[in-house]
Amino acid sequence: MTVRALWYDRHTLHLIDQRRLPAHLIVRHLRTVQGTAEAIRTMVVRGAPAIGVAAAYGMALASRQRGMTPTRAAVLLRATRPTAYDLFVGIEVVRNAWTRGDDPEAAALAYCARVVGECRKIGEAGAPLFRQANKVLTHCNAGALATVEWGTALAPIRVARDRGVRLFVWVDETRPLLQGSRLTAWELDQERIPHAVIADNAAGYYLHNGDVDAVIVGADRVARNGDFANKIGTYEKAVLAHENGVPFYVAAPWSTFDVGRKDGTTIPVEERAEAEVLDLGTQRIAPKRSHARNPAFDITPAKYVTGFVTPVGVMRPAELTRFLLRHRARLAAPARP
Amino acid sequence: MTVRALWYDRHTLHLIDQRRLPAHLIVRHLRTVQGTAEAIRTMVVRGAPAIGVAAAYGMALASRQRGMTPTRAAVLLRATRPTAYDLFVGIEVVRNAWTRGDDPEAAALAYCARVVGECRKIGEAGAPLFRQANKVLTHCNAGALATVEWGTALAPIRVARDRGVRLFVWVDETRPLLQGSRLTAWELDQERIPHAVIADNAAGYYLHNGDVDAVIVGADRVARNGDFANKIGTYEKAVLAHENGVPFYVAAPWSTFDVGRKDGTTIPVEERAEAEVLDLGTQRIAPKRSHARNPAFDITPAKYVTGFVTPVGVMRPAELTRFLLRHRARLAAPARP
Repeated sequence: MTVRALWYDRHTLHLIDQRRLPAHLIVRHLRTVQGTAEAIRTMVVRGAPAIGVAAAYGMALASRQRGMTPTRAAVLLRATRPTAYDLFVGIEVVRNAWTRGDDPEAAALAYCARVVGECRKIGEAGAPLFRQANKVLTHCNAGALATVEWGTALAPIRVARDRGVRLFVWVDETRPLLQGSRLTAWELDQERIPHAVIADNAAGYYLHNGDVDAVIVGADRVARNGDFANKIGTYEKAVLAHENGVPFYVAAPWSTFDVGRKDGTTIPVEERAEAEVLDLGTQRIAPKRSHARNPAFDITPAKYVTGFVTPVGVMRPAELTRFLLRHRARLAAPARP
Repeated sequence: MTVRALWYDRHTLHLIDQRRLPAHLIVRHLRTVQGTAEAIRTMVVRGAPAIGVAAAYGMALASRQRGMTPTRAAVLLRATRPTAYDLFVGIEVVRNAWTRGDDPEAAALAYCARVVGECRKIGEAGAPLFRQANKVLTHCNAGALATVEWGTALAPIRVARDRGVRLFVWVDETRPLLQGSRLTAWELDQERIPHAVIADNAAGYYLHNGDVDAVIVGADRVARNGDFANKIGTYEKAVLAHENGVPFYVAAPWSTFDVGRKDGTTIPVEERAEAEVLDLGTQRIAPKRSHARNPAFDITPAKYVTGFVTPVGVMRPAELTRFLLRHRARLAAPARP
């Protein structure tokens, strides 16, 4: 059994509420673009490929709402979160179909199927990177919950396991929202893949001690030169992997690649509410007068990336740039957000 | 007003219960070495210099207990925590006085005064490292709570402030036990020093963006070559400071220097209960079947250290080694633990 983060039927978008996992498995049922936008903004659904698909379905729901236009729906969905490129791709794919007079629901379903298919191919392309008994570190959640099915960073781990390669996964808990200990550990536990949760602070310790054979993460946006945005803390792990000679892989479907963006310096980084850092659940940790800063993403320069695991294979950053430029017309789906 | 982590009067050791801060300011009153050992083990008191002083007072309390011997008391206290060198120094100083027939309480009081005096000198030696409006990153708590008074890493920040140098402090929250958001933020808030709490994951982001002018941390044990143990995550910050050309300082009194230890490779690293990572307070975060690993410290190689801030001045690692070898006889107080 694999997890599925969301599905669409009878003109309804069904989303697992990822804020409540792993204690509660609750499914939300949405019938409007406004509800979908709110679910993305409040992180009921998160993970770049998954929010792209959710947004595509949000456009499909909008097409059935009285008085809604492709442009109004796109504006609503685009305003939810700034960093993940997939969001803008998912919106644009369905907006184009709708504007052309094609069926928006069929376009959204096709977009979802494309993303799921690419994630499976990422799994196949990435699985040979891992050897028997390897210890693999991952940060945040780049599993099925982040991508509808399979995952990006977790897809090669799943395919390797299905091929009989037994891996152990170090799971960064990923403060502040704990997507590692809550979501990645939950997915690995569902499939009985051996793992241990660690404080984000302990990743460097295990990297330095030779206890990590590879690092693999997802991405929220990859620029043409290979600089990429991902969950806050990814940059730290990339530098530490590099310093310790451990390969560092970034797995992403095509919807994450921002081909029109030369490098990562201009990728917008979302800053979220300070309460995510200052409180644990309903309890205040820090002193009442203290403040926090809470960037949700960081930008990792391409020089720290050993390889991008894409649906067509693993590429070094320079290869990726050549590939993206060659296929630019086909990949640059959305208008620049 | 400065905070004081512990004090001793009327044959009683008084400790602020640091597990309950900042929500509750509770003082524990101890009259036995067993109670003191338990308080150290359960982290009622933590921070290398502070547990050294607490252990010294624990030896003083033992000397008043019927049937207790210097050796039995030392064995009890030594078994509490393995990494901080100060613990073994504090025990040994009072054990020697007791064995010689000197007053153990006077020896413990003198040891405490020595540590406090050294922390004040660390503040004076380190303050000139910071310029007006500098942004300084610190990890864990190396303030008054960790050292009785003044702190190690925070001492130069306090002295700089008293000299009119206005600094801003980035406070790593320091998972799993959140000594940064609970204790360092509390100390800075008490003295109205501007600061912001960040997830440990965000330190690299601010270092990379040029928003950090210096990093300063305390230490739990420094080997002769300058390799040092400190709270888990310190190694990550040191590598990231180095990668981004930001100076990285380690502040410690002489009780933290393990002169007899050639390098950091053999420093014992405590591994604590996995519940510290898997639970938040009484609430489980991770799936029920998931496990965690929880090393409480890491070892940072000397090559990442710009300078050690000691009671006699700031020294590069090579200078530190020469100084330690020259003053070896005077510094090597305890038997090797």
